[in-house]
Amino acid sequence: MERRKFLTGAALGAGATALATPSLAQSGKTLTIVSTWPRDFPGIGMSAQRLAARIAQLSDGALNVEYFASGERVGAFDVFDEVASGNAQAYIGAEYYFTGKHPAFAYFTSVPFGMTNPEWNAWIKFGGGQELWDELSGEFGLKAFTAGATGTQAGGWFNKEIESPDDFKGLKMRIPGMGGQVISKLGGSTVSVPGSQIYENLVSGAIDATEWVGPFNDYFMKFYEAAKFYYTAGMHEPGGGLGFSMNRAWYDGLSDWEKAVIEAACMEENAAAYEENIAKNGEYLAKLVDEQGVEVRNFNEDVWDAFGEAAEEVFEETRDHSPLAAKVNDSFQEKLREMGTMNANFEVGYVNQRNRVLGLV
Amino acid sequence: MERRKFLTGAALGAGATALATPSLAQSGKTLTIVSTWPRDFPGIGMSAQRLAARIAQLSDGALNVEYFASGERVGAFDVFDEVASGNAQAYIGAEYYFTGKHPAFAYFTSVPFGMTNPEWNAWIKFGGGQELWDELSGEFGLKAFTAGATGTQAGGWFNKEIESPDDFKGLKMRIPGMGGQVISKLGGSTVSVPGSQIYENLVSGAIDATEWVGPFNDYFMKFYEAAKFYYTAGMHEPGGGLGFSMNRAWYDGLSDWEKAVIEAACMEENAAAYEENIAKNGEYLAKLVDEQGVEVRNFNEDVWDAFGEAAEEVFEETRDHSPLAAKVNDSFQEKLREMGTMNANFEVGYVNQRNRVLGLV
Repeated sequence: MERRKFLTGAALGAGATALATPSLAQSGKTLTIVSTWPRDFPGIGMSAQRLAARIAQLSDGALNVEYFASGERVGAFDVFDEVASGNAQAYIGAEYYFTGKHPAFAYFTSVPFGMTNPEWNAWIKFGGGQELWDELSGEFGLKAFTAGATGTQAGGWFNKEIESPDDFKGLKMRIPGMGGQVISKLGGSTVSVPGSQIYENLVSGAIDATEWVGPFNDYFMKFYEAAKFYYTAGMHEPGGGLGFSMNRAWYDGLSDWEKAVIEAACMEENAAAYEENIAKNGEYLAKLVDEQGVEVRNFNEDVWDAFGEAAEEVFEETRDHSPLAAKVNDSFQEKLREMGTMNANFEVGYVNQRNRVLGLV
Repeated sequence: MERRKFLTGAALGAGATALATPSLAQSGKTLTIVSTWPRDFPGIGMSAQRLAARIAQLSDGALNVEYFASGERVGAFDVFDEVASGNAQAYIGAEYYFTGKHPAFAYFTSVPFGMTNPEWNAWIKFGGGQELWDELSGEFGLKAFTAGATGTQAGGWFNKEIESPDDFKGLKMRIPGMGGQVISKLGGSTVSVPGSQIYENLVSGAIDATEWVGPFNDYFMKFYEAAKFYYTAGMHEPGGGLGFSMNRAWYDGLSDWEKAVIEAACMEENAAAYEENIAKNGEYLAKLVDEQGVEVRNFNEDVWDAFGEAAEEVFEETRDHSPLAAKVNDSFQEKLREMGTMNANFEVGYVNQRNRVLGLV
């Protein structure tokens, strides 16, 4: 694989949004982006590349954007240090990959029993979430915007049916973040490996189960070759965002206009990435079932209840880490409860009635 | 009220997103925006002003943006002709105000038993919706982007309880679009008046009931002074978008970069407007109940079933209007069923389990 790929229309491929060829002028500021996603990967990989191209386009030559997929410049999990150190200007990825730096990063991707994407965006933009994210990122010399999302993720791929909480005992599963801690409390053994390494682990039997994203993204991972039971909505990543995190000193040196260009591009892609999953999940779930014989299942209420008890313990442990972790958790949980109650009586209450009347199940 | 207000930081007020003062350079292209919303109106009015300011900022002087609220240049319902004729370059409003021009415009705001905002955005951006909107708008010399949203709207304000479908018989209600047609089929008498005229109609007794948006927006309308029963999720506007519709010839004359600036700003605000409602509805519903003694109710299943039967007739009548109306309806209904089924098993299925486990009702 080439060591450096300059951003061009050809390298980006055709996204759903029409992209003009980015400016090739080299007079602007350098914006080198390192990503946690594989190049050209359907869903999240293409979304990240679309974002890089849009920043280049909107900046009209003021920012010279280079994009490196995972492994092209640094490994997926090394992007944080690459940007914090100033070697690159921004990374695109999931903040919960960096809970080793600080556990509160989990809240800026997604946590068990957490917010849906719309709820989370509402917390970030209008409920105090961005200020807390700034405080957390600021401790590491970073400044992040939300710039992508997956929607409520699938419960995952299993090589056996999950019929009770006991079925997690001894299960080896790839599941990062707090979702992994929940599975550990149920007796599972969890690992966090980047997307590019999951398939080989599953096929070799090093793991029995994995979660990834949802039908559209998961289809291309071919997990069905080793694990045929596919669970719908999981507790572990119900929503939230993917981050565009910049070196703070570099960001502070931008003009107000350059900052606005980056923010607007992030917000546009943040919405589009979520909506692309919604638009395509149905088609790809049908392909998984019809072409690959995947068996679709829902977790039962006993399993959900056990998830809930374990998640409570995980949140308590996270709060104990530091005052900042407690502050982030408490803001998140308070807004979740306020918005969750409204959601039950507005959007979700509506969908339940609509689907009942129209017979959609 | 001043006849012309140039866009300045002061005139725009303080939105939730920080806004730089737009460029005052007069060398760029003129972009005069006329809006269907009152000036400085919390929620949708401020959202429209935020969008105008963001386009000005991102264009960095290339577009000289002027914004006129409803009544400042033309009346709310006259914006369509003002832009189609080329007197102004763009309007911000709800497309379903213009079903008199073509009934298919309803699908580009919201229709009964229709999509939620995320589902609708997925249809527009990734499911063929934008192409159909372009075809429809193109017949009138317009080109629109989605640029705002309300979330699932409240069922409305009533001066009596609605306990069965028969309670709509003889009811005089302000409810535009196809939602109004559904209420008419149940025996109600419906009118469509702009937001600025609803309060006086309700207080005078000219109407018995009205819908507007949701708790955050409705709070400022003071409808509770004349109608104390407030219904949560209605069938009539479950989601969808508000439009930024441009004179097509003007839009076609823009550079690719100018087009990208407008599109990105619209997409950013489209997400933010929706999320602002989600963030604030809980707080304002509590104020309505605690400060104003509003009685909150949900429609029962008998009422929902009657809504559903009436809506089916409305869709059939709309299809009969023209091949384009049928094409728009059929695309919408097909995608709705595909995404609605997925939603039941992913995001909404998740929220139902989360709220059950956490006791959020």
